[in-house]
Amino acid sequence: MESKSRSKKLNEIIEEAGICDIRYGIKGMYVWLPYGMEIRNRVDGLIRNEMKRTNHGEVNFPLLIPENYFRKEEEHIKGFSAQVYWVTHGGEKRLKRRLLLRPTSETAMYPSFALWVRTHSDLPLKIFQIVNTYRYETKQTRPMLRIREIHFFESHTAHESFEDSQRQIGEDIEIMSNIGKKLCIPYLLNRRPEWDKFAGAYYSLGADAYMPEGKALQIGTIHNYRDNFSRAYNIKYRDEVGEEHYVHQTTYGMSERLIGAVILLHSDTTGLILPPAIAPIKGVIVPVVFKGKEEKVMEFAERVYEELKDKEIMIDRRAITPGNKYYEWERKGVPIRIEIGPRDVDEGCVVIVPRDTKERKKISADRVKDCIDEELKALNERLYRRAEDGMRRSIVKIEKFKKIGRKIAKFNWCGNEECGHKIEENLGVSLLGTGIETGIGTGIESEREEGRCIACNKECDTVAYAAKTY
Amino acid sequence: MESKSRSKKLNEIIEEAGICDIRYGIKGMYVWLPYGMEIRNRVDGLIRNEMKRTNHGEVNFPLLIPENYFRKEEEHIKGFSAQVYWVTHGGEKRLKRRLLLRPTSETAMYPSFALWVRTHSDLPLKIFQIVNTYRYETKQTRPMLRIREIHFFESHTAHESFEDSQRQIGEDIEIMSNIGKKLCIPYLLNRRPEWDKFAGAYYSLGADAYMPEGKALQIGTIHNYRDNFSRAYNIKYRDEVGEEHYVHQTTYGMSERLIGAVILLHSDTTGLILPPAIAPIKGVIVPVVFKGKEEKVMEFAERVYEELKDKEIMIDRRAITPGNKYYEWERKGVPIRIEIGPRDVDEGCVVIVPRDTKERKKISADRVKDCIDEELKALNERLYRRAEDGMRRSIVKIEKFKKIGRKIAKFNWCGNEECGHKIEENLGVSLLGTGIETGIGTGIESEREEGRCIACNKECDTVAYAAKTY
Repeated sequence: MESKSRSKKLNEIIEEAGICDIRYGIKGMYVWLPYGMEIRNRVDGLIRNEMKRTNHGEVNFPLLIPENYFRKEEEHIKGFSAQVYWVTHGGEKRLKRRLLLRPTSETAMYPSFALWVRTHSDLPLKIFQIVNTYRYETKQTRPMLRIREIHFFESHTAHESFEDSQRQIGEDIEIMSNIGKKLCIPYLLNRRPEWDKFAGAYYSLGADAYMPEGKALQIGTIHNYRDNFSRAYNIKYRDEVGEEHYVHQTTYGMSERLIGAVILLHSDTTGLILPPAIAPIKGVIVPVVFKGKEEKVMEFAERVYEELKDKEIMIDRRAITPGNKYYEWERKGVPIRIEIGPRDVDEGCVVIVPRDTKERKKISADRVKDCIDEELKALNERLYRRAEDGMRRSIVKIEKFKKIGRKIAKFNWCGNEECGHKIEENLGVSLLGTGIETGIGTGIESEREEGRCIACNKECDTVAYAAKTY
Repeated sequence: MESKSRSKKLNEIIEEAGICDIRYGIKGMYVWLPYGMEIRNRVDGLIRNEMKRTNHGEVNFPLLIPENYFRKEEEHIKGFSAQVYWVTHGGEKRLKRRLLLRPTSETAMYPSFALWVRTHSDLPLKIFQIVNTYRYETKQTRPMLRIREIHFFESHTAHESFEDSQRQIGEDIEIMSNIGKKLCIPYLLNRRPEWDKFAGAYYSLGADAYMPEGKALQIGTIHNYRDNFSRAYNIKYRDEVGEEHYVHQTTYGMSERLIGAVILLHSDTTGLILPPAIAPIKGVIVPVVFKGKEEKVMEFAERVYEELKDKEIMIDRRAITPGNKYYEWERKGVPIRIEIGPRDVDEGCVVIVPRDTKERKKISADRVKDCIDEELKALNERLYRRAEDGMRRSIVKIEKFKKIGRKIAKFNWCGNEECGHKIEENLGVSLLGTGIETGIGTGIESEREEGRCIACNKECDTVAYAAKTY
């Protein structure tokens, strides 16, 4: 079983790996350090690639939103108004209209959507932005997981029909699946209960990853808004025969919680283990030098480095002990270590040590280039599989109420709100919602199993999940 | 002479090329559209490359700065306090401490610098970030040039000594030169007069590009702070013998004004002309199709496209007239058009048309790949040279006061403040400062020429410039 003790605390790993400095003067906001920024930029890069593949255009809307833009969709305001930061002054002058820092960008964007969409030929409209969002969080904050300045990805789309918006949700499920694979984060996809959906949404899907601490972490959300926002913001198109219709809209959001999930999932007692796709350094060559033999080893190591350097491999030439180097790069989560000692030079070999297994493997130096690719791929698969096994093992199918602790409860639920609340009370955890298939090409298929609602005992085939959450 | 009439208005070009939508609900803030974002991301990419080459690490500091962080450097506050946006409320609750949106990040960063710098081995510290900054601008706003949400690059360094900080300034001058070449923006580098330097700086250099409207646009600033900030923020290091010293600091800033300068400099009556380094589409293939011959032309065009597509060349397959396509891509500033008509197919040729000269050149289709690279390079050089000629022609050497209008005045100035103000009054323009050599490897060499101060007639060899500014 995954347990708390097997890995370091989140804050320690973040600090020791040089990802963030959390000593900034505002609670819930911190400084991204160069190594952390390189990881974050790579996560953003993966997302940009997926957006390009699926024809989303990148945009950037202003941070500040006029109060009147914000006030248009009632449910949405109710959901966010306790959490927004208000700008009231410019210099020492009070502003005529208050401005808010974006908590998310629906209300900034949709007045523009109303200008951009005229006819069916303007649809689908598919855009995204990667920006920071701001939420005045009153709960206990925690780096990457619950913060006040959030590095945020949000895509927004508009469609002719509900059917077309559903196709978009299917595409978003695929994108989430691709990102999850690259970051080695398995997850359950759940349709949130009515009382837990996004403010203004028709329905919300949440991607819930299971963390070794025994809690589910929402790492992505996908929403179908139907025409809830387009009616409020007057986003209409003319069809082929000149008739006007409101557009159907969807959104998809992810944040630095992806990095938080990577850290929580893929760490051991030493520290971080980075999935290759987001590792700024894929491997580090450490010359294991002893007195008198330095030159031979260094020369050989430099030749190996020359061959590998376009693969984001670096060489550590510093005059400190190999052991100190090992420890430093392990804490930074570098996927592969390449050791080269005097005997290896004599044999024309190098020793490859994957960060997760730490199993030393001697290979011929002329095979090193291909071998690195294979090792990275194998490490990626091991990380994913280990996390997936952990998640699967934590799922407990139940047919009667019982305290579920730090596991994920799986059960049948009829969908009734009253039953839902009863379930949460009796299990002592949050209802994540009803299960949706997560894979590529699955569309929006619900997970189904014959059974009876755990609360009211009515026959139903809808599977639901519940767990502690962050 | 460059004149206003030869190019379209800035707002029109921005709108027609699809760079920004300036109809956002807050003055001085606007929406970056997909094509504009692709350009902006490329400019950021050029800067990141230069930062990597010179070993600056990328960081990201919070947007919000606590009021007490801000209040530490007196000159700095005086310079900015009329311009900052204040956050006073979280939800409907008044915050205990006011927070400001970064107008620039000295006051956010330097408390962390005090934690990071301990000994001489921590120096030099070289970091940068690319973020948006916020200034409550009370003057007339104008897209890209004078705005309230500014896409901003800022590097910050700390050094053991003044000499080492001066070496950094030399490196910054090189970086500015590289960026200027890639964006085809020539500029003068001026040491700003005392009364116009950055709030808190020991001295400030400004890179002033000359716009066809007849005004100088500051596209980059480089500052040496000496120990002005390190004393206020207590940033000290221990040297080899254990003695404590305050660090010497520099900063270097650029913004989306770089894109504004590109637009103002490189446009004609049709619209934008993009320097190849930041063009999202380097060239577009337009099949010139007539009835009955479509298939042959399309097949040939697709084959040419296959060969070029890794060079960011696209093909326009739409069923609209070639003339409409030409016009659209010209307004978007695509550097090269590749026309393919039925006769070209028979001859195995394509016609290459650079965006600036519009001179049609027929070449053999099997030479097209090399030819594109040559044409892009030649276009880059023409754009730079044309802009540089425009700037050089606008410089007027004067020895007596006279109204200078929309030219750049060059003259000797003794450096005295009283003389400086007299010069500004009598020329009716702003003093840009004393000239500094701009090139790579020039260090911080002042431009020198024998003469007499234009105001007090005292002998001096310091050359100064003055012009209308934005």
